[in-house]
Amino acid sequence: MQIEHITLVRTPQGTPTEADFAFGSGTLPAHAEGQALVRVLALSLDPYLRSAMAGRHLSAAIHPGDVVRGEGLVQVLESRHPRLTPGTQWVAQCGWRSHALLGVEAIEQARRVGPEVQPPTLALGALGMPGLTAWAGFKRLADAKPGDTLVVSAASGPVGATVGQLARLAGCRVIGIAGGPEKCAWVTRRAGFDACIDYRAEDLREALRRHAPDGVDIYFDNVGGDVLLAVCEQLAVGARVVLCGLMAQYNGEAPVPLNPGLIIRARATVRGLVVYDHWAHFAEMVAEIGAYIRAGQLQFREDISHGLASTPSAFARLMAGRNQGKALVVL
Amino acid sequence: MQIEHITLVRTPQGTPTEADFAFGSGTLPAHAEGQALVRVLALSLDPYLRSAMAGRHLSAAIHPGDVVRGEGLVQVLESRHPRLTPGTQWVAQCGWRSHALLGVEAIEQARRVGPEVQPPTLALGALGMPGLTAWAGFKRLADAKPGDTLVVSAASGPVGATVGQLARLAGCRVIGIAGGPEKCAWVTRRAGFDACIDYRAEDLREALRRHAPDGVDIYFDNVGGDVLLAVCEQLAVGARVVLCGLMAQYNGEAPVPLNPGLIIRARATVRGLVVYDHWAHFAEMVAEIGAYIRAGQLQFREDISHGLASTPSAFARLMAGRNQGKALVVL
Repeated sequence: MQIEHITLVRTPQGTPTEADFAFGSGTLPAHAEGQALVRVLALSLDPYLRSAMAGRHLSAAIHPGDVVRGEGLVQVLESRHPRLTPGTQWVAQCGWRSHALLGVEAIEQARRVGPEVQPPTLALGALGMPGLTAWAGFKRLADAKPGDTLVVSAASGPVGATVGQLARLAGCRVIGIAGGPEKCAWVTRRAGFDACIDYRAEDLREALRRHAPDGVDIYFDNVGGDVLLAVCEQLAVGARVVLCGLMAQYNGEAPVPLNPGLIIRARATVRGLVVYDHWAHFAEMVAEIGAYIRAGQLQFREDISHGLASTPSAFARLMAGRNQGKALVVL
Repeated sequence: MQIEHITLVRTPQGTPTEADFAFGSGTLPAHAEGQALVRVLALSLDPYLRSAMAGRHLSAAIHPGDVVRGEGLVQVLESRHPRLTPGTQWVAQCGWRSHALLGVEAIEQARRVGPEVQPPTLALGALGMPGLTAWAGFKRLADAKPGDTLVVSAASGPVGATVGQLARLAGCRVIGIAGGPEKCAWVTRRAGFDACIDYRAEDLREALRRHAPDGVDIYFDNVGGDVLLAVCEQLAVGARVVLCGLMAQYNGEAPVPLNPGLIIRARATVRGLVVYDHWAHFAEMVAEIGAYIRAGQLQFREDISHGLASTPSAFARLMAGRNQGKALVVL
């Protein structure tokens, strides 16, 4: 069977460009016992993949010549594994391909997407790994109380937007940080944050002092870099900081000092979050966030590109921070 | 009454020198209602004072021209406050003086030193603020379990030595970090640590990998700087880091990056410790550490200089890391 795929041509330098990737085609063998053939309906583009391309992520490195790894929403075409019935939809490690032969390991790790998930691409966003990241960081690490002031960066992304809305629903005051007026407008008008700071247009430190004059009780960090440092300068005594992502480092920039003196001054508790540790809570997260979405209490946003060939440019846009919401490629 | 004192002449640049201070004398007025006249028996020299001299500490700044602030062991000579009976000994904010007139605030914050504290200078070390720092960090923030591998820097100092010995008594494996063979020998032979790394003579990262091959479960940081970074590179998953002091920054060096990626990779919990937050536990700490000391299970070490005039050079030695144990001046 003839399929299409995207390979990594070279390790990106700085922000990835389309030229780091190549569109190609190949032939899939007939599938063996224990395998399943799936069609890829949508690909999830995630910043951690940039880190894996540099060999700096917890997960396996993506080497030049590899078909790029990644999760997608897939539909089972043929199956020789009892778990995957033809016609059903799953989230699985399919890679950047039009079709994939899933092996036993990928099949056992696949997550069923039932008809109640509408649109089904939510299983890649607010009801998927980004949703679990947000839920676990907020519910299990942030120790939030009603009235707390929570700041979250990358606030219009699938993790940040979900964190902020869970916090709003839990009675926190929520301040987002995002780049550009369009993102900030969505964050305040649609996602209902109390405020959103445009770090490209405003003096971030001044804006933080203005929006959180009594200090920041919880900071959910999706970016690292100078934004992390700036928020740490404004922490309230007893603050909690959840370190979740390091967008500012994924493209290869040097780590920015997280000044330990600021942590001491605030008697802060800083926790590192790795979403895989919280996998056992997936169903709990889906039940809770799913209910909020169905009730119209939690908004989500998808940035959809069309066609496998658009994947490299969509990924480059994501890593340049020019996406508007969860970055997806629909095939 | 004629008294002697030490003033700060200029804000130190880098490590303090004797020339930053001046020995002088002055006259104390008769003491008013609510005050008490005390003789200073011993002064406690503490690294945070260097930070206060630069105006970078939580406590009030020490300005050029000020008599240097600081805690001491004092004996009451005359009192017009009901709390301080003549002849009794206390730890109080007396400053670098031969005698002091304590006001109401200092009297209310003073801590009684009973005859059971032997030697009484222990009230400035293992049974004083350094002891509470160690006890609170270990008992209240480190979440230690028997079998944990704990690393502590400035291991021969009053905080580090106490932390390590509390950890040993709680069933942890304890690795110290200290500068010089003499300090390391005391830490392993007298304080009973399992090992002590001489960061001046050894490759710290290699030594950490050798002594903690399965990773560091708890790091109690008294120094900041590159030592903090090096230990963070060796954290075990689920590690706890207690940020207590920043010796490396007190002399004015730039903060060293605490790489957030290392915190995420280890799913670590990093907590800032400010000893004042734990003041309510003072008696509990004194009971516990005092019992260990009387039973010969916890060792302490004092680096004693003699005479008020020796205070500047003793402080300069402390800030250059050349002290051996709790730095004290006995008057």
